[in-house]
Order: sequence, then C-alpha cells, then structure tokens
Amino acid sequence: MSQSFSFNSQAFCSYTKARAGVFSTPHGNIDTPRFMPVGTLANVKTLTPAQLQAAGAQMILANTYHLHLQPGESIVAGAGGLHKFMAWGGPILTDSGGFQVFSLGDIRTISETGVKFRSPRDGSMIDLTPERSIQIQNELGADVIMAFDECPPYPASREEVELATNRTYRWLQRCMKAHQRQDQALFGIVQGGVYADMRSMAARQLVDLDLPGYAIGGVSVGEPGELIDDIVKVTTPLLPEDKPRYLMGVGTHREMVRAIASGIDLFDCVIPTRLGRHGSALVRGERWNLKNAKFREDFRPLDESCPCYCCQNFSRAYLSHLVRAKEALGFTLLSLHNVTELIRFTQRIRDAILGDRFTTEFASWL
Amino acid sequence: MSQSFSFNSQAFCSYTKARAGVFSTPHGNIDTPRFMPVGTLANVKTLTPAQLQAAGAQMILANTYHLHLQPGESIVAGAGGLHKFMAWGGPILTDSGGFQVFSLGDIRTISETGVKFRSPRDGSMIDLTPERSIQIQNELGADVIMAFDECPPYPASREEVELATNRTYRWLQRCMKAHQRQDQALFGIVQGGVYADMRSMAARQLVDLDLPGYAIGGVSVGEPGELIDDIVKVTTPLLPEDKPRYLMGVGTHREMVRAIASGIDLFDCVIPTRLGRHGSALVRGERWNLKNAKFREDFRPLDESCPCYCCQNFSRAYLSHLVRAKEALGFTLLSLHNVTELIRFTQRIRDAILGDRFTTEFASWL
Repeated sequence: MSQSFSFNSQAFCSYTKARAGVFSTPHGNIDTPRFMPVGTLANVKTLTPAQLQAAGAQMILANTYHLHLQPGESIVAGAGGLHKFMAWGGPILTDSGGFQVFSLGDIRTISETGVKFRSPRDGSMIDLTPERSIQIQNELGADVIMAFDECPPYPASREEVELATNRTYRWLQRCMKAHQRQDQALFGIVQGGVYADMRSMAARQLVDLDLPGYAIGGVSVGEPGELIDDIVKVTTPLLPEDKPRYLMGVGTHREMVRAIASGIDLFDCVIPTRLGRHGSALVRGERWNLKNAKFREDFRPLDESCPCYCCQNFSRAYLSHLVRAKEALGFTLLSLHNVTELIRFTQRIRDAILGDRFTTEFASWL
Repeated sequence: MSQSFSFNSQAFCSYTKARAGVFSTPHGNIDTPRFMPVGTLANVKTLTPAQLQAAGAQMILANTYHLHLQPGESIVAGAGGLHKFMAWGGPILTDSGGFQVFSLGDIRTISETGVKFRSPRDGSMIDLTPERSIQIQNELGADVIMAFDECPPYPASREEVELATNRTYRWLQRCMKAHQRQDQALFGIVQGGVYADMRSMAARQLVDLDLPGYAIGGVSVGEPGELIDDIVKVTTPLLPEDKPRYLMGVGTHREMVRAIASGIDLFDCVIPTRLGRHGSALVRGERWNLKNAKFREDFRPLDESCPCYCCQNFSRAYLSHLVRAKEALGFTLLSLHNVTELIRFTQRIRDAILGDRFTTEFASWL
C-alpha cells in the first residue's frame, strides 16, 4: 500500500468480528464502519456536496462506465479530476464499470480480452478491458479505484461462476500492471458467486497480491439476503486485518449490521437516493411511502431523533404535500434524510463497537 | 396600515423616481428595491429555505389558488401556517389566485360574485370569490395578502378592461371587509390594461382606500415590454410615497431597472426557477442554454463575480454535464444561481440608489 493510504483498527467487538477503524486516503479519512453514498454520474442524485457533508458523508462513489459514456473522462480530467469537477473535497471511490457492463445483458460480448458493447447513448461500439477501465479511472482520479471484474449473475452454474472467478483474477493482474498512479489505491474484488469454496479460493489468491483494500463483489444481484450473509462469513476471515473491507452494493440496515459483525468496513447502495426520488423515506429500517394518506396531516418530523436538515425543519405533512405535487424539493429532502439515516446508522454501530456495546445495542438486527 | 407594517424610504435618485427603502413586516424587513422568488406550492422549486436565504431572498411568494387545490389551506393552517409549513421564517406574500383562475380560460365562468371553475385536480366545482380568497389567505397566514382581482387578458377591448377594472375595485372593497387578521397586510391591485386613463382612475380609487401597499397587476400577460414601462410610468406617480409598490410578474433585468426608475419597490417572476429547470442560466441579463456544445469543456464558473454556491464551486462544464444527463442537481444549481442573480441585481440597484449612482451605473439598461 502506498504511504498515502493506511487502515488502522481502533477497536474490536468482544463477541463478533466487528471492528472500528480509520481508512486514510489522500483526500481525508473515513471512519469505519461507514456507508458511502453513490454518485454515479459525478453527483449524488439531487444533493449538493454541502448537503452530503452535512449528512456525514466521508467517502462517496462515482462510476467509471457512466462517466466514460458522459461526459467522458477527458472532460473530467480537463476539470482537474473528479474531486474538482464535482466539488467534493473528500475521498472518492470509482467502481470499475464491470458490474454495469455485465448488467447490459444481450447487448455485450465477453471474451478474455474484455467486454465489447454498444453505447446506450450513441450506439457506438465500446471496448472495455481491464487496462482501459484502469486508464479511465486513472484519468478520473478517485482515491480508490476498483479492479475490472466479471460479475456472474444469480443464479449461475458452478461452471459459469468458476470461469468468471478465474477470469476476474487474471484481469486483476492486468489491472495492477496497467495502474499508473501512486495516489490511487487499487482494490481487488472477490468473486465466486454463492459457492463457498470458490469465494475462499478467490480471497486467498487476491490476498497473495497484497492489495491496499479488498471488496466482496457479486452480491446483491438478486440472491436471498441470507446468502449475502453466508458469502460474507466465508470470505471476510480470509482477508487481511490491516486492509479495509468493502461489501459492494449492500446498504440495508439488516445486511449492514450482519456484515459488520463479520468484519466488513465499507458499504455503498443506491437505495437511499432511489427511494428518495420515489417519494419514500427510510425511518429506522422501515420504508415509508410519503404518498400514504396517513401522512397528509402528520405534523411530526420523519424521525424526531434525526439531526438532518429535513427532520429538523419539515413535517411528514409537508413532505407528503411535496411528493404528491411532484415537487423536486421533496425528492431532495427525502434523499438527504435517507442518506443521513444510513450514514448515521453505521456511525452508531461504529460508536457501539468503540464502546464494545455492539452486540447489546444491535441485538435486534443480528 | 397596522403597526406591524411600515415602509420607510432611505434614499431617492436625483434623476429618476427610483427609491431605496425598507418594508417592515411581522416576519422581518425587506430592503427595496428587491426581487422576490416565487414559491407557488409552498416551495421555491428545487431550493431549500437555507439555499434561498443564502441567495439573499428576503420575502418569497406562494399562491392561494395552487395551495387551495393542494394540499388545501386547512393542512397549512394545521401545520401552524405557511411559515412553519414550508420552514421559511422570513416574510411571505400570497397572491390571491385571481391571475391563475382567469388564466384557466374556458373552464371558468366569471360573474359579479366571483369565479366558478372545475378543479384541474379532481374535477370538482370550486367557487372563488373575493371573500373566499381572503379567507384562504387568512388561513395560510402570509405577511402580505393580495386582493382578489380580475386580470383582463392582452389584447382586450376598452369595454372588457373597463368592466374588469371596475369589478376589481368592487371586489377589493369586499376583500377589505372580509379580511380578519391585523398581522397581515392586504395590498390592492391596480388594473386597467394598457389604457392610461383607466390605470389612473384605478390608482386614484385604490389610494383613497388607504391600503398598506399597492401592486400593479395585469402586466406581463403577453403585451410588448414597452407597454409595461408605459403602464408603470402612468400608474406609479399616483401611488403614495409611504407605501410599498409591487409590480406583479415582472422579473427581467431590463424591465426591473426601468420600473425601479419609475418608483417600483418589489418584483416577482417564475423565470429564474423555470429557466433553471430547463437547463438555462441567467448571466448578466443573458440567457445561456447549458446544453450548448460550447459549455462542454468550459471550466469557468457561470459568473466569476457571483457569490452563489453554484458559481463558487462548479464550472459551466459540470453544469452542462448535469443538464445533459438530466440530473436534478443541475436544475437545483441553476435555479440557485438564477435566483441569486436577480436578487443581487436588485440589491446592486439598491446600493447604487443609496449612493445616488443609479443612473450612471445602470445607464445601459435605461
């Protein structure tokens, strides 16, 4: 790991594998465990950087595939990189585009070289290879960049998953070779589907490469929630203690608590902003549709204990009005609350781990 | 005028009728001349109250017609009134709904009693009378409420305008009688179309009623810009010096400078947020479409001299990216800049009047 990056554990839970730590990057520290909001197209939908900061966001995500299609990495680089382009001074992580191109389904072809697909924007043919993904991510300039991996769907046969897992390993080695910037940490991604032996093998192979951080990928692709837990339980113990561990695409309260109990540090999910844009609020793990008639004359805040700008200033009745009237401000306020809620939830878990109260305070989720 | 309201002139231009003053209301002062952002449905589209405050907004608008249809005035009253409902602690003005119901065209019928129309929301028949409009505005609880007027279209015959102008006067008297709250100031609206003699007659009649403020209505309904100027020039000198003067629906740079030169204090217009939602920026009186290819790699702020959050943090290239990608944040940032631009413009005029530099600094607009 370059000197710009470090992960230091601060406390371990006495009863689970949960840990609290600090992940340091060139653009600042991330207190773990922590939820990271997703800013696919170089913005967390509907929210300003100032609002994200107030929500407690430390590291945010952006996406290589989406930014390559628009506005293109050269424009982001021309602006001085992603941090300047989107005015986010804190740490940023870019996903490699692997997950997105595999989600394209029929309109892409995969070979050992990489993935060829038609741009959904202009129909042009695009070649995304491990080298190209890393080159784009080097241009974008995030603090953490992700290996270009092959993410098998769920369900997938053992053979399919084996092919994808082995290829992901070969592609990772190509990513490492292509990677040019010392001020960016390249994380490897453990694949292996729902097959415990393949997850173990993949984890061991990746650990041997001594990367600055490790992610568990290929989850939250449609499999039952229990399987996520099983995958995390098998994989996490094999990952090194002194490196951050990131469970990709996971962000419900229950899944996060369980993954943290297995030793995961970082999470991301589009859920809080997606729900916000659809007029729904995350309140203590529940999902409330603000269009529901019962909120029309409910003058309480969404969550009295929430310090966010939405809960400190507005009532459920007002949010219900904005959502019914399709006013954009309603979606902004709900997104702000939802992002705050998930970050606060992981912050509360962190505080509990620091005080060794994790299993007592979060027993109901475990 | 109730003791809660006052208008005090601070300076007069030596060469024009322009004046700088302070309009005091129960929820704070408005430094005039000043542009007021429009928050039709109890929110200025895409912007939080915190963002509005940072933009320099002092008084904002909301609309009786729209709020009656949704969420209904009883819900707003249940929340403790408009200020609490929308979390805007500063002064608020509600328009009476007159302009909106007359804009409904064929689906409404006008009589001496008032206006009957079908709700565009649920098809139910709604009676909006002067008494009802005031009752709704009393429930909403804005600082300034507007008389329910008949706004003739442009063009309209002398006979049509005469009927509307006289009816507006009779309706104003009914509004005054219906008005119940001392902590709300009822403004009269001068109608009279483009007919100078009718404008004069209406202004004289209204002044005799000794209202706490006066508006010029029925402009910006499709007539050429020069006619607005003519109407303002005829009407304003007849309005009392010690009351605020509000030119309804006007908010372009040129129209505001000219109206201020004739003695207008307050303006409102949906233009800044509407342009923002359509991906356009107001920059020193020009309108820029951020989708224009020339902005794709333009890494300068919209306006280097603008102190708004958008100009202080983001480039034209980033805004162009957000607008092209239809990201809601782009519309928010543009709305924020546009509202800031119009408020700052009136603030700069105010500063110039206070220093008696109005005609020299704003000569190019006059």
